[in-house]
Amino acid sequence: MEVKKSDFSEWYNTIIKDAELCDIRYDLKGFVVFMPWAVMTMNRMFSMYECGLESKGHVPALFPALIPESYLTRESEHVEGFVPEVFWVTAAGNNQLEERYAMRPTSETAMYSMYSLWIHGLKDLPLKIYQRCQVWRHETKATKPFIRSREFYWIEAHDAFATKEQAEAQVKEDMETTEKILHQQFGVPFLFFKRPQWDKFAGAVDTYGADTLMPDRRALQLPSTHFLGQNFAKPFNIKYTDENEESQYVWQTCYGPAISRMYAAVIAVHGDDKGLVLPFDIAPVQIVIVPIVKKETEEKVMKKCRELEKKLCEKYTVKLDDSANTPGFKFNYWEMKGVPIRLEIGMRDMENKSVVLVRRDTLEKKPVPEKDLEKTIEKLREDVRKNLREKADKWFDGQNEKADSMEELAKKIEEKGFIRIPFCTDGMEGKPCAEAVKDKVHANIRGSLYGEKEKPKNKKCIGCGKPATLYLYASRQY
Amino acid sequence: MEVKKSDFSEWYNTIIKDAELCDIRYDLKGFVVFMPWAVMTMNRMFSMYECGLESKGHVPALFPALIPESYLTRESEHVEGFVPEVFWVTAAGNNQLEERYAMRPTSETAMYSMYSLWIHGLKDLPLKIYQRCQVWRHETKATKPFIRSREFYWIEAHDAFATKEQAEAQVKEDMETTEKILHQQFGVPFLFFKRPQWDKFAGAVDTYGADTLMPDRRALQLPSTHFLGQNFAKPFNIKYTDENEESQYVWQTCYGPAISRMYAAVIAVHGDDKGLVLPFDIAPVQIVIVPIVKKETEEKVMKKCRELEKKLCEKYTVKLDDSANTPGFKFNYWEMKGVPIRLEIGMRDMENKSVVLVRRDTLEKKPVPEKDLEKTIEKLREDVRKNLREKADKWFDGQNEKADSMEELAKKIEEKGFIRIPFCTDGMEGKPCAEAVKDKVHANIRGSLYGEKEKPKNKKCIGCGKPATLYLYASRQY
Repeated sequence: MEVKKSDFSEWYNTIIKDAELCDIRYDLKGFVVFMPWAVMTMNRMFSMYECGLESKGHVPALFPALIPESYLTRESEHVEGFVPEVFWVTAAGNNQLEERYAMRPTSETAMYSMYSLWIHGLKDLPLKIYQRCQVWRHETKATKPFIRSREFYWIEAHDAFATKEQAEAQVKEDMETTEKILHQQFGVPFLFFKRPQWDKFAGAVDTYGADTLMPDRRALQLPSTHFLGQNFAKPFNIKYTDENEESQYVWQTCYGPAISRMYAAVIAVHGDDKGLVLPFDIAPVQIVIVPIVKKETEEKVMKKCRELEKKLCEKYTVKLDDSANTPGFKFNYWEMKGVPIRLEIGMRDMENKSVVLVRRDTLEKKPVPEKDLEKTIEKLREDVRKNLREKADKWFDGQNEKADSMEELAKKIEEKGFIRIPFCTDGMEGKPCAEAVKDKVHANIRGSLYGEKEKPKNKKCIGCGKPATLYLYASRQY
Repeated sequence: MEVKKSDFSEWYNTIIKDAELCDIRYDLKGFVVFMPWAVMTMNRMFSMYECGLESKGHVPALFPALIPESYLTRESEHVEGFVPEVFWVTAAGNNQLEERYAMRPTSETAMYSMYSLWIHGLKDLPLKIYQRCQVWRHETKATKPFIRSREFYWIEAHDAFATKEQAEAQVKEDMETTEKILHQQFGVPFLFFKRPQWDKFAGAVDTYGADTLMPDRRALQLPSTHFLGQNFAKPFNIKYTDENEESQYVWQTCYGPAISRMYAAVIAVHGDDKGLVLPFDIAPVQIVIVPIVKKETEEKVMKKCRELEKKLCEKYTVKLDDSANTPGFKFNYWEMKGVPIRLEIGMRDMENKSVVLVRRDTLEKKPVPEKDLEKTIEKLREDVRKNLREKADKWFDGQNEKADSMEELAKKIEEKGFIRIPFCTDGMEGKPCAEAVKDKVHANIRGSLYGEKEKPKNKKCIGCGKPATLYLYASRQY
């Protein structure tokens, strides 16, 4: 690639174009075309996430993409938060519609209208349903492929429980699922922050957002899980009859892993100066075979390559690059595409009964005896995953800092990702202090770190100077 | 079930409700909620179809759900056909949009706008891209779950070629894919008809539709494949430079397997008086285990059931029904849900080291020695597929008849599915004769049977009485 990753913004735009991940020339602002190489990876990411959710008792359903305005406006905070971003359908064919319909910006209101019909007694609980779909939001912020667009692809899981405790346990389960898939499988590190009240999901009691850091140390929000309490159950009238024959409102949670945005994180976190670096299990091509041929040996080498392709195909996604391009061109091309393993086969290798294997993540190159090839690849599958994750973790874990004053924050925010600061409160009254942070140091409040017990002692809020009651974290953000 | 399949329309509505496949109570006419049991099957059907397309060189992409009006109106016949059914987005948040956007009724115009940017030379051809998505059409006909609704789920494959011959070969390949998946895998029989000119896809040169028959002998159109010629290439300016450095328009095809509608066919074709009958590979649960317990033996039997569940889980989707319901209730429930294999295990079976196995498709019940169980199931997987397909074929193949006059057609259409009739022409001039058929016998013209060579000799068109030049087929339809 012509751009270095140290110039991250330019690198990101270049890799999107060069690796053919996304075409931004579709004539509708904020809408892009997701190209095959990206979709093939995203489909694998979807499958892994769906498996993860199903293993925890979620089942899939599909709700309409259009939401009647009467549904959407039933919960007041939710309306306020989403209506300014809604695309409205007002006509069909040549006719004006009597009621206008929202293209779903999120599906709470579509789904909960049905939940009230489906939930009657304890036997119907818990109800754990997810849908894989796209949503539309008329964002006013600048859009960027996979990171923020007016149409994006996600999974949303919506759960209902008999008790508050069960719903709270679900929030933890969602966090575990995030760890299991996003971190363990995709190798993307993150921290869960409990968002301040002024930044929670519209309609939620509490929002927990998983934030990763892009290479420019700006935070990117990945899945968030929300404790909804009974905020929706009441306006949507979702009730069950308990063991004492009494009618009770359910307790709800929702969880929204946005696959397109996680894909952005995979690109950004693992990529390098040569292009994409894809984790083995989500790579559209896991192994590329490059024949090293001279005219006189071509037939023999190609035969060997095809044999190998056929054998490896049973277990992996394999591409034999038999195009007319030079080996050097092919090396660069498939490195840029992020293919985890490259096998080179020439006459000399054949004579030695070996194959040259190159790892994309470390660029390490070594001959492997043909008889050990499958074993070596199977081991690499795990090694690559581990190496990518550990490398990402190492950098990410070093991105925490502390600051006790606005001046200190202004300095630290230029050096590190998440800066811990003492704060007056994460309730609504803290909002002016968050705005001060934004105005003065162009940083955003992520919230309190989930699980952190430590409280500030004798410290002052970085904004108002009143006694600090908790630590919040600030970062630049996408 | 309380309704017999012989009363098909009522049976269909009942199974949809009783097996919890679809909820029609969403408050938007023509939009329904697809319930988990249906979505789990449809997801498997999607995967198999995607595999089939990818094995023929298609790659997935994702195009925006919104289409600028300027794209949509570029091909004149296409506009005329689709605009009356389009849902229009005219506002975002509180603002009117400057241009209005169509929710895609189909994606030709969204995709081909990009194809013109992607195709330059022979190296870019053939281009074979599919997307899995939902589309929206403001249908005026009566809607019915999975069969016709204003929102449906499909795959659309759009291919571009250098030559006409290659595009024509693609149409055949699409037909082969339909045979391989819809017939061989899902067990749904069909015939491909070349639609008359008055009934082709808006913008196509020729349309070939795969029609199956529902149990009431009404035809249901399943995937159709279209030869588009250069009808879109010209207005969308999709050109490549050929070997002589000359600029040429591409030749195009498109193919649209609607998964939700194929699911309707699977329900209708294979179901029986006890409920759904699902092909093994697309069943959400492939094997259900029902413990037959008495209080004193419960522990032992349950232990055995869990062992078996664990073992079979490695290869199949297994459900151990350990609910408090009676075995009889469970038998009925899982038969209604269409689960292909039921295993019953009680103390006596354990003593005999055997398991009682019940096939859903034949309802045959027999003990199987435990040591042979896995082998038996693996064999059944193929047997069930074959049996369902052959049973469906047998009925379907007996649904052809011939008629030479309107009177004869009126009689035969009450007895059989597809009635072959002599016709003047399938060009636009034949339309009044098709309308006469519709008015007089309430039947629709499907078109000419793909591959049929026979021509009428000394016969008259059933409509106008002029000399017949070809045979067309008539049926009742959905």
